[in-house]
Amino acid sequence: MVYRIPDDGDTRQRAVCPACQTIHYENPLNVVGTLPFWGTDGEMVLLCKRNIEPRRGYWTLPAGFMELGETTAEGAARETDEEAGADIELLGLFTVMNVSRVSQVHLYYRARLLNTTFNPGHETMEVRLFTEHEIPWDDIAFKTVKATLETYFIDRKAGHFAVHAMDIT
Amino acid sequence: MVYRIPDDGDTRQRAVCPACQTIHYENPLNVVGTLPFWGTDGEMVLLCKRNIEPRRGYWTLPAGFMELGETTAEGAARETDEEAGADIELLGLFTVMNVSRVSQVHLYYRARLLNTTFNPGHETMEVRLFTEHEIPWDDIAFKTVKATLETYFIDRKAGHFAVHAMDIT
Repeated sequence: MVYRIPDDGDTRQRAVCPACQTIHYENPLNVVGTLPFWGTDGEMVLLCKRNIEPRRGYWTLPAGFMELGETTAEGAARETDEEAGADIELLGLFTVMNVSRVSQVHLYYRARLLNTTFNPGHETMEVRLFTEHEIPWDDIAFKTVKATLETYFIDRKAGHFAVHAMDIT
Repeated sequence: MVYRIPDDGDTRQRAVCPACQTIHYENPLNVVGTLPFWGTDGEMVLLCKRNIEPRRGYWTLPAGFMELGETTAEGAARETDEEAGADIELLGLFTVMNVSRVSQVHLYYRARLLNTTFNPGHETMEVRLFTEHEIPWDDIAFKTVKATLETYFIDRKAGHFAVHAMDIT
């Protein structure tokens, strides 16, 4: 792979395969996931203990890279099924977070758990429900997960869930 | 480029270069842009007449593919400068639209125009301000642009701008 400016009016260097000449545009990736909650007043949230690197052994919300042909909501529901095996009703978009240091955008949806039967996939060691005070805040895998959890409990206390756009540095 | 399932636990076919063996993950792309408005009550919006395909000669909001290392807001501001040469104050995230048919997510921000001096780039034939009733609704380049414009005038009448998540089919 070599990097050069293509001959098509582009202004940036792109990765070009010296064998097949294909221009491989590299663009930011979307990570999509859910914040699954449980309880009469949504007082518990689901977290997954990661069984894979990076951040193996740390707790996360179910999330992963958005795939071709799906919507952000469909991707978020798919990841929730793959990582937690949880039955959910997907609700509204909740956080939109730029992580420009790694060229990613993370989007989380709120999701109502329909029951507490979980069936985690190979990427997850353990699935558990936590109240706000039980959450292992020092063992959360990613800043975007921590920000989404914190924002959830703030909005929950306020009695109103908005869409939150944030930059994570 | 050949398509096969990589040997790393992946479950999907990926594009693999037969020469360099690099796996080229293909994921949805983000398109980022602004809805620049003008007037004491934001009654006019800026549109660009496209000078490039697709949809050459049709009207659009300034927008384009998000690039590596930038936030959605930074990309939206960059595209507004490149396509319209407009001076703006970037405001809040406004629309988040899935266009899964083409594996894209479009994100638009509201932007206050600071003056009416425009300096369009080579991708734009003409830049103009339109009131709601002047907008050439039949000559709008993309459904996401039309949806963003329609939502803007609805929210403006309601006196409150929210973040709107939509699927565009």
